[in-house]
This record gives sequence, structure tokens and C-alpha cells, in this order.
Amino acid sequence: MNFASDNIWGASPPILEALVRANEGPLASYAGDPITRRVEVTFGELFERDCAVLLVPTGTAANALGLAALCPPWGGIVCHEHAHIIADECGAVGFQSGGAMLIGLPGVGGKIAPETLEGVLSAPRRAPHNVRPMALSLTQATESGLVYSLDELHTLSAIAKAHGLVVHMDGARFANALVRLGATPAEASWKAGIDVLSFGATKNGCLAAEAILVFDPVRAANLSERRMRAGHLLSKGRLLAAQLEAYLAGDHWLENARHANAMAERLAAGLAALPGVRLPWPVEANEVFPILPLALDARLKELGAVYHPWPATGLPPGERVGEGEGLFRLVTAFATTPAMVDAFLSAARTAHGVSAAA
Amino acid sequence: MNFASDNIWGASPPILEALVRANEGPLASYAGDPITRRVEVTFGELFERDCAVLLVPTGTAANALGLAALCPPWGGIVCHEHAHIIADECGAVGFQSGGAMLIGLPGVGGKIAPETLEGVLSAPRRAPHNVRPMALSLTQATESGLVYSLDELHTLSAIAKAHGLVVHMDGARFANALVRLGATPAEASWKAGIDVLSFGATKNGCLAAEAILVFDPVRAANLSERRMRAGHLLSKGRLLAAQLEAYLAGDHWLENARHANAMAERLAAGLAALPGVRLPWPVEANEVFPILPLALDARLKELGAVYHPWPATGLPPGERVGEGEGLFRLVTAFATTPAMVDAFLSAARTAHGVSAAA
Amino acid sequence: MNFASDNIWGASPPILEALVRANEGPLASYAGDPITRRVEVTFGELFERDCAVLLVPTGTAANALGLAALCPPWGGIVCHEHAHIIADECGAVGFQSGGAMLIGLPGVGGKIAPETLEGVLSAPRRAPHNVRPMALSLTQATESGLVYSLDELHTLSAIAKAHGLVVHMDGARFANALVRLGATPAEASWKAGIDVLSFGATKNGCLAAEAILVFDPVRAANLSERRMRAGHLLSKGRLLAAQLEAYLAGDHWLENARHANAMAERLAAGLAALPGVRLPWPVEANEVFPILPLALDARLKELGAVYHPWPATGLPPGERVGEGEGLFRLVTAFATTPAMVDAFLSAARTAHGVSAAA
Amino acid sequence: MNFASDNIWGASPPILEALVRANEGPLASYAGDPITRRVEVTFGELFERDCAVLLVPTGTAANALGLAALCPPWGGIVCHEHAHIIADECGAVGFQSGGAMLIGLPGVGGKIAPETLEGVLSAPRRAPHNVRPMALSLTQATESGLVYSLDELHTLSAIAKAHGLVVHMDGARFANALVRLGATPAEASWKAGIDVLSFGATKNGCLAAEAILVFDPVRAANLSERRMRAGHLLSKGRLLAAQLEAYLAGDHWLENARHANAMAERLAAGLAALPGVRLPWPVEANEVFPILPLALDARLKELGAVYHPWPATGLPPGERVGEGEGLFRLVTAFATTPAMVDAFLSAARTAHGVSAAA
Repeated sequence: MNFASDNIWGASPPILEALVRANEGPLASYAGDPITRRVEVTFGELFERDCAVLLVPTGTAANALGLAALCPPWGGIVCHEHAHIIADECGAVGFQSGGAMLIGLPGVGGKIAPETLEGVLSAPRRAPHNVRPMALSLTQATESGLVYSLDELHTLSAIAKAHGLVVHMDGARFANALVRLGATPAEASWKAGIDVLSFGATKNGCLAAEAILVFDPVRAANLSERRMRAGHLLSKGRLLAAQLEAYLAGDHWLENARHANAMAERLAAGLAALPGVRLPWPVEANEVFPILPLALDARLKELGAVYHPWPATGLPPGERVGEGEGLFRLVTAFATTPAMVDAFLSAARTAHGVSAAA
Repeated sequence: MNFASDNIWGASPPILEALVRANEGPLASYAGDPITRRVEVTFGELFERDCAVLLVPTGTAANALGLAALCPPWGGIVCHEHAHIIADECGAVGFQSGGAMLIGLPGVGGKIAPETLEGVLSAPRRAPHNVRPMALSLTQATESGLVYSLDELHTLSAIAKAHGLVVHMDGARFANALVRLGATPAEASWKAGIDVLSFGATKNGCLAAEAILVFDPVRAANLSERRMRAGHLLSKGRLLAAQLEAYLAGDHWLENARHANAMAERLAAGLAALPGVRLPWPVEANEVFPILPLALDARLKELGAVYHPWPATGLPPGERVGEGEGLFRLVTAFATTPAMVDAFLSAARTAHGVSAAA
Repeated sequence: MNFASDNIWGASPPILEALVRANEGPLASYAGDPITRRVEVTFGELFERDCAVLLVPTGTAANALGLAALCPPWGGIVCHEHAHIIADECGAVGFQSGGAMLIGLPGVGGKIAPETLEGVLSAPRRAPHNVRPMALSLTQATESGLVYSLDELHTLSAIAKAHGLVVHMDGARFANALVRLGATPAEASWKAGIDVLSFGATKNGCLAAEAILVFDPVRAANLSERRMRAGHLLSKGRLLAAQLEAYLAGDHWLENARHANAMAERLAAGLAALPGVRLPWPVEANEVFPILPLALDARLKELGAVYHPWPATGLPPGERVGEGEGLFRLVTAFATTPAMVDAFLSAARTAHGVSAAA
Repeated sequence: MNFASDNIWGASPPILEALVRANEGPLASYAGDPITRRVEVTFGELFERDCAVLLVPTGTAANALGLAALCPPWGGIVCHEHAHIIADECGAVGFQSGGAMLIGLPGVGGKIAPETLEGVLSAPRRAPHNVRPMALSLTQATESGLVYSLDELHTLSAIAKAHGLVVHMDGARFANALVRLGATPAEASWKAGIDVLSFGATKNGCLAAEAILVFDPVRAANLSERRMRAGHLLSKGRLLAAQLEAYLAGDHWLENARHANAMAERLAAGLAALPGVRLPWPVEANEVFPILPLALDARLKELGAVYHPWPATGLPPGERVGEGEGLFRLVTAFATTPAMVDAFLSAARTAHGVSAAA
């Protein structure tokens, strides 16, 4: 009953098998190997466009390097105030960029509203005193498990571009969002105005593999040097490339995401049926955010369930976490089975009975 | 009728004369001269405490170097969302510190309220993911021309220290605040919990001279190297030292500040007497923030008045800038004369009549 | 016949098997898993000392993070002018440290001579103008495949410490050096004055796994934050930890190194027996640096041999690369077989006959 | 008898008078004032070319900001190993640039020889591993008081440009070099291949005023933001502008330099006439580097002379500092009088007699 995160699991079987297969024989080092080349080609086909592809081992590296390539040290980067880049990466963007300032905006469910973005970008600024926003970073799916629609992406990127900004997407859960949208990778990224995508794979079945996709290769100039000096160019490039080759092969990545999303829906449906439990947002990806009675939470923990509390900001208007309640996050993944979900729901029903009776 | 800023004026006469006097003869370079030594001693006497004193030419240098000495690259610095360090210095703190994150808090009149500070600092944080606030920066007088009382300073610094933060004060207008408080320099700084003070002098009569005062000299370790590599160690140290010696001599700095504050009060009183004009905050230093009818503003500009519009955020509850109105900032200085103020007020009365009649 | 590098190979079998085994089941993320804990304990036992252990995926990350923890942004880091940190990491140390200056010293065979070090460190310096060396970085084995003796390490670290420096070891090939020395890990590191060791494992059998070992844990303060914001904290920590656990288990790492060294000796012996071929340095680790006739080199390349030319600086006094000759580097690894070496030597003998006859 | 440096003096009289004159009345702040505008125009006329002009208070700021605009964080900057930027600015370039690596080359008299430069630039480099030199910085006059001829500048900049580098000149003593060359400012800078000039004025009569001249304004993009966030945009821009206006007016700067150079020649001639004293380099600017008997040096110090010892590297072939000798630096300036020189020489003759007799 471990729903702590989607990174508590190892690799999904086809990816692990690919790693084992790729271990054979000598291969050119430092991303000069044929597997890396094949992955680059595959990304181009998948996204229907020439793009620069840089493989890195972590999402923090992908986000910070990608944003450093988009925003100079004296620029500002607009993001949601809960975005991983501002809230969870220990200042990685400020570091990689040489000092760029993150500007966090409020918004329900981790989403930036168009009017909020427009308001910030149209405020008068005096050069060189005021930091000028030069990039927008959108998280897809959001930190609250919601998915920006294609329309929302188009609207936000259009506002950003009208003000001269470039647009980055933190796609740590890009696959989970994509299967929800039912869109192509191209539609959900560059066709919707995204200039650079942190294409996440670790949370969805890899062990450690992310790709920075730069849709205008001109913007990728020097990203290779940035990656090298940041220590993110692996000498044995097969490690990252083999994972991603298997990840993308035969829609494995989309199947993993569909499964994780389905498990989240199953979990959400079961939770929502419990008295005293409610979900402030719909489940659109692989994360469930229930408001639970604290007594229920305590009982579930005793029964061995693992999941985390979550800051109760960005709730929809009218919603609040009441006395004796808490907001929590439960995450499903490719490896989550229906049996795991059902065991948790059964425990929750038992616990609820106990806690309700107490 | 120029109230654009307090940095539109040159040096006050005693300071200019000191510069001329100090020009004679050879002196050791790079802050090794006797005037710099005397200034260091004077600061120690003035603040009743041994402290490290580093002279620099700009307030941005003082703030960013001082904060870099207090907060590591991966730390957060809490400040008001209007603070000069976050709003007007083009990312200087992120740069000098190697990436520290500025965390801007809302608050009426440029002041951080204790409960706002406590709320931010007591939020749970998970190392090493979440940026941990490690310094608080208070602006005295605030960007809105208000002055933190000694009680307020004690309260805020106590909250900060209870959470392990150190406290910096941006004292670009420290003198203006001090004469308002009627306190000693020590009472308004380290006795109120301030660890590092950006002691401003440029706005109050110098040409370019600020001091970083570090009240615990241990914290100043390496600040000399930081200043050097930032290009802020002047080879002809007499330039900064002579200004500050004259600034501090015979209470010249306090007289300048008293005068500037008095001019602001005179200006405020005259403006407040005009129909349709109101001041959302009292005048406590040398800045006046009137809400003016836009027609009056336009007419004043035609008559040659110079001053700036100001963002209308952080107004007191209940106050707002209405249709056809604007918030503006007018700044007085040591060189502002009663005649200048009266000429402006006379123009305003004339303009008001004209605009009211139009 | 691929001797291009020791990073052209995948993982050695026990390490790959460990990765597969470790893939099972949920584990706490971000280095909170039990395998990481076990690896930390093992390192402590192996090095006979409490030490801080931080796992990272690349040697560049290990070197740059380790040195950033030892040297402030305004300090200098002394190293050999061929050291990987100055010659091959695209400025990683300058980046991670926030600007520290690398000071490259000449020396035969990649070694820094004590008198060279003493000369640089005893030069007068004027603070804060001159960058003061604050760390020494030694590469073991050196970039030229030589191994510092324990005496040499003691002498160099003593000179460094007498001048207030701390000592870092780039141990990308630490295992190869260790089996040559016949010393314990402790003797070859902290007992010889090393404060921080970049413990390499990737080149010697892992896919991507290095450890930063900080022998005085006090110096490791904030290294966790540094690693996080640099993007080097893997969410699925089992990837690095499982590799290192298998690497260290049952002396697997030492066996791999012994084998690689033996293959290098076999290769060197065979090459040295060819007319016109000579080795400017003895083979002490897993790298062979022959001076080859260019005609022989060309013929070997035609026959499919893979290896790299090498800059001919740092040769012993009296040695030089003549007209029609070149200096080359050949690297062996755990996966190099005697048959591979013999095939190369056979080709070399054939080629030599051909080229000699041509 | 103070020859410690050219920055031991204050401002020359016309510059001080200009400062006093410029003190009157309100002026737009932050380089928006008319004096700054006039200075920009004057520089364009003087250098016969549109160029971006940024005023800053120190030479370290000028060098580091100018180089940061020319070289990305992962690039290398080639300079003489004695250059101020590598030897005396506490890592300022690495800091402002975000980590660029300085590559110091040896050379007699502070000059880089063409063959040395060509050798370094034509060495093979492998991206992204090896730091690629992207800028060349030449010091004019050199740290040893020599002046690159126009031919030498053309040759060096041609080599640099053939390898894709841009060229920076540290002109802390540009005026002293210019009057020696008898060339126009344009001939000695952009016509000789210089892209960015740190135009020094502080050492030659200003109190604190330098200009960054960027001859291709496209390269100056964002230099305004860099200056701001580095804290080098003075709020009272008149301070820098008034100094430079007077400096450039009526060839005052060239007169100051001619005088300082003449004083250096007078000093050199007198010293060279003393037995046991020799000059390893000719005097071409305002610095004299005699090799003195240590006994003479000791006696001169007793008599009140002030000057510094100098590292004895970069001597011409065949020259060396013998037992009982030392290399020293004496600097003259606009304020040095013939009487001061003669007093020193007289003391030297007396001391010499005494020491010779001792």
C-alpha cells in the first residue's frame, strides 16, 4: 500500500531487459554510441520535427539546463508557485542559469490562469532595474495532478510569446498528461507553443532517464557544453539511451501512463465513495489528492499505508481543509496493481469504520 | 519641481568640500588609506560596537554583497515583494550569492507583518528539496516611505532568529528612518536584531558611498574577497572614505535626513489639503505617495513637475486607486528647499483649479 | 581491438545482476532507500573511518561537487595541467564552485613534483587581490597512467596542509592505483592526507556510479544541498546504490582493477618488444602510452584498432616524440581479454612488418 | 618619494574641478543624465566609430563585465600569466562570466608572443570536454610596462580571429601606451582588431572612472543588465561622467600620460646610471622595473622611498635576478614631479654610496 510517489519503483520490465541487452560489447562513450543516435531519431519522428535531444539522468537536470538555455542570468522565469522548479529543486534553476529569478504565480490546482499571466507580464518594467520575465514554465501534468488542455496551452503560450517570452514545459509526467489529452506529442508540445520540453521518463518506468527536447535547434546551441560542465553527460551513454529506446518502443511509455492513470482513477473512485472524504480536483493523471479525516489518515498509516500530506494551497474557491482534516497526495505508477489499490481501499473502508466509530 | 528621486542631486556641500580636501597628496590605495581607517573607527563609535565596515560605491553592491555573506547559494532570502533587492536590482542578489532565491512577501506599505513572516517560516520543508529561508531582509525606511518601529524590528527579527535566519537591513534610507524613530544607530540596528546593515549615504548627501556594516565580524570573513572579485574595491579609497567621513561628521547625515523628512511633510500636508488628493500612508521618511486625479497629474507634468507613477499594490485595506486616479511617488532630499515644495504646491493648486474646472 | 577508453564497456556481470535484483519492489526515493544506507556503511568499513558518502552518476559531478565543498568561489585549486578537472570537464569546477580558479602545474607523467607545488604555494600573495590556492587536487592514477606512491602522497599533502590547503583526490581510477600500491583504501586516502576522494567506479565496472567521500564529515555540510540543486540526486537511488554495493562486494572492484592492470602490462610488454616503439612511462595502472611510428599507427587503424592520440607534453627529460612518430593512449578495462590484447599485438607485429617494409 | 602605484594620487585638477562644477542642480539618475550622454558622444568621436559606452567605477568591473559579454561561462579566456585579470582581481572574471576559465600564457615582459598564442589555439580540442578559448585579453601597456606595437596587436588579433576568438584589451594604462605609440585611439584599438576595450582613466588622473567600449554594439546587448546586477550602475551618474568629460577634454588625458611617461624615463635614466642597477626591459610607459642590489633597496626604504618588489618571472632570455638582488617596480603618474624623481635619485645615489661602502 505504498502510494508515496511514482519514483518508488524500479524500471518496468521491458526497460530493464533493454538495459541488460545493451550491456554487451564496446560502444563509443559520451553519447557517441548508436543507441543514443537511434533515440534522437525516434524523438524526431515521434514529435514530427527536427529537434535537439539531450539525455540527462534527472528531471532537475532537464528542467534547469533547459531553462538556462532559454533565459539569461538576469531574466525572470514565470511559473506556478507550486512548480517543482521553484518549490522542490533546491534552487537548481538559479544555479544552472547563473542567477535567473523564479517568479511564482498562484492558481487553482497548480494551473496558471491566463489572466494571472497577462497581469504579470503586462506590468510596466524599467530596464535594467526590474527583472524582465523572459521565459514561462508550465508543468504538465501539474503538481496537483491536473492536465492543461490544448486550448489552455495555446492561450498561455500565446500570451507569453506576445510579451517576448519563450515557453518551457516541465513534462515530468508528460506521458500521463498525453494519454489524458488523447493528443499527439507534437500537438501537446511545440504545436501548442512549447519551445523546450523536459520529457520525463523516470517516473513512468525508467530508472533514471530524461530528455531535453529543444524544438528550435538554434536555441540548443551550447546546451551540450552546459550539460558537460554540469556533470550530466554520462560517459557510458548506453545507460540512458537504452532505457529511452525501450521506453518509446511500441508505445510502452503510453501504456505505462494509461495504466498509472487508470489506477489513480480506481483509487479516486474508491476514496470518493467513503463518507467524509472528498477530492478538491478531478483525477486527470496519476495523482490523487483526497481531503481525509485525520483520524482516517492515522488509522491508514497504522495499517501500513504510505503516502504524504500536501500543502493545502491552491484549492478551488469554496473548498477548504476543515478542522480535523488534511489534504494528502497518493501517486500511482506503472507498477501499481489493481490489487494494491483494492487493498488500500479495503483498509480505508475498515479504517473508516474504526475511526468513524471511535 | 523635481521630486523624481533622492538621487537626482549631487553631493551636499560639506561632502563635496571633503572630497576636494582629500584630493591632496599620495595615499595608500585599495582601502589602505588613513581616511578609510578613520571612517571604520567612526562607525564603530557611532554604532557602539566593533563591526566590520566595507565601503562600496552603490546600494545594490551593499545589499547583494551583504546578503551573499549571510546566505549560501542554495538558501532563500525572505523580503517584502516590493523590496529593492527583489524588484529593482536586476537579480543582483541571485548573482552575488551564486543563486540564492528571493521570496517576496506581500504587506501593507512595504512592511512585512509578523504573522506573514511566521506563516512562511513555519511551513514544513523537506531538505534538500525545498529551498530553506536562511535570511530575512528588511527595508528601512520601506519602499513606501514607512518606518518600522523598534518594536516591529524586534518582533520580526525574533521570529527570524527563532527559525534560524539571520537578518539584513537595506538601509538605503536608514538616516531618514533613524531621525523619525528618534533612536540611536545601535538601537535601530543590532540591538533590534539586525546582523548586517546596508548603510546608505548616497541618497542622503553623498555622491556614491555606502557601507556594509557586519555587526558580528565573524560573519564578515571573506567579504573583502567578495568585494574585490565583484569589482567594488576602489583603488583610490579616499573617494568613498572622504565622503563618509564628512557625512558622519557633526551629525551632518542626521541633519540632511531631518531636512528631507521635513520637506516631505511639508509636501504631504500641502497635497492632502487639495480636494481629491489623499495619502494612503502617513509620511514617515522622505517620500510622499499621493493618490492624484490623473487630470491633475497631467497638468502638473505640463507645468514642469517631475515625479513617477507607482504600482498600486500593498495599499491599506479599504483603500484603492479609483477610476481616473493614480498612485504617485514624490521624493525629497537634503537639497530640496521649502521654495521648491511651495512652488510645486502652488502649481498643484493652480493645476487643480484648472483641471477641476475642465 | 578497441582500446579507446575504459568507459566503452557496460557493467561487469555481478553489477548488472545486482541492478536487476535491486529492481524489485517499492523503495524510498532520493537516497532514502536501504541499499544506499548499506553502501554508506560499507564505505565506512572499507575506509576504516566515519565519512560522508554522496553517490552521484558521473566523475565530473563527483570532482566538481567535492571541490566546491572544499574551495570558496574566490579561491584557487592547484592541479596538474593535464588533470581531468582542468582539461576535460568543460569548466565544471568553475561552475559548481561559483568561480574558483584552477591553477595547472606542469610535471612529468601527470605528476606534480613536490618542489613545483612548494614553489607555487610559497609565492607571496596579497589579499584580496591575488587568488589564494585553497585546495590541491591530485589525480590517482594520473592522466598518464602513473601512480603516486604513498610517500609521494604524504609529501604533497603535507606541503599543501602546511600552506593551509585541503586536499582532494580525483580517484576516477582509484582502484587501479590501489592494487598497484598494495595499500588499503585508508592508507591511500585519508591516512595520506586526502580530505575528499572522488571514488570512481564507472570506469572499472559500473555503468554510472561514483561516490564523493568526505573524510571529515564537517566539511560535507551542505553537500547534500549542492548535489540536489546540481541535479545529481537521483530519485531512484537504487540505481547508483545497487551498482556500488555489487562493486564493493567480495573485492569485485579490486579484481576488476587487477585484471585491467594486467591487461595493460601484457599490452605494454608486447608493444615494447616491437622495434621503433617505446614507452615514455612505465605502466602502473590500466593505461599504456606508446610512442609509435605514424606508419604503424595508420596501418593499425586500417586493421580496425581503436585508440586515441595523446598530447606529447609532460614527457620525461630527454624523451621526445620524433619526426614520423606520435604519442598514443591505449586503455584496458575489466572487460578486456587476453585474446583482445593478443589480437592487437599480432596486428601490430603484422602492421609493423608491413610498415617497416613499406 | 612614493612610487608605489599610479593609484596613490587623487584626481588631477581639471577633473576635480569638473566634479565640483557637475555637482549643481538636479540631473536624471542612473546614467540618464546629459553629461553621460555627452561622454558617450565624445568617445564615439574620439574612436571614430559608433560604439557602446558603459561607465563603471573600477578597472576590475570594466575587465570582468567586458569579458563576460565576450565569453560564455564554458569558454576559455587566453591572457598573459601576469595579466591583472588572472593575477590581481581575485577571480573577478570567473565570477562575472559564470565560470569562464582563464588560461595564462608565459611571455617576456608581460607580452604574449604570436607563436605562443598560435600554439595554444591550434592545439586540438574535443567538444564539449575541453574548454575552448573564446576570447583573448591583451594588456596595454603590459604589466611589465611594455607597449605592444600596432604590428604586434595586428598579428595577435589576427591569430585570435583566425581561431574564432574575440579580442579584449585591458587598457588600464591605455593612455600611457597611446602616447608612446603616437597612434590614434582607433588605430590602437578596433583598427588593430580589438573588440572590447577597458578604457582606463583612474590611474591617469581620475578618482574612479573607467569605460567599457564595445566597438560592435551588437556585442553590447545585455551589458546594461550585467552592469546593473553587478551593482556597477551608479545612481548619481554625474560622478563618473563628469570625470571622464574632463579627462577627455582638450587632450588632458594624453598630457597626463605624456607627463607620467616622461617622469618614468627620467627615473629610469637616473637609475640605470647607478652601478649595479639595470633595467631588464626598456621603459615604454609609466613603470620602471629596476633590478636593485638588496642593500640599496633596504637603504632607500630607510630613507622613506615607497615602491614594491615584483615577481622575477618573464625576464628576457639571459637576464636573471642574482644573489643579493631584487626586481622592483616604481610607478609614476600625472602628479609625479621632476623634483620627486630627482629627490629619489639623489637618495639612491647617496644610498648607493652608503651601501656600496658598507
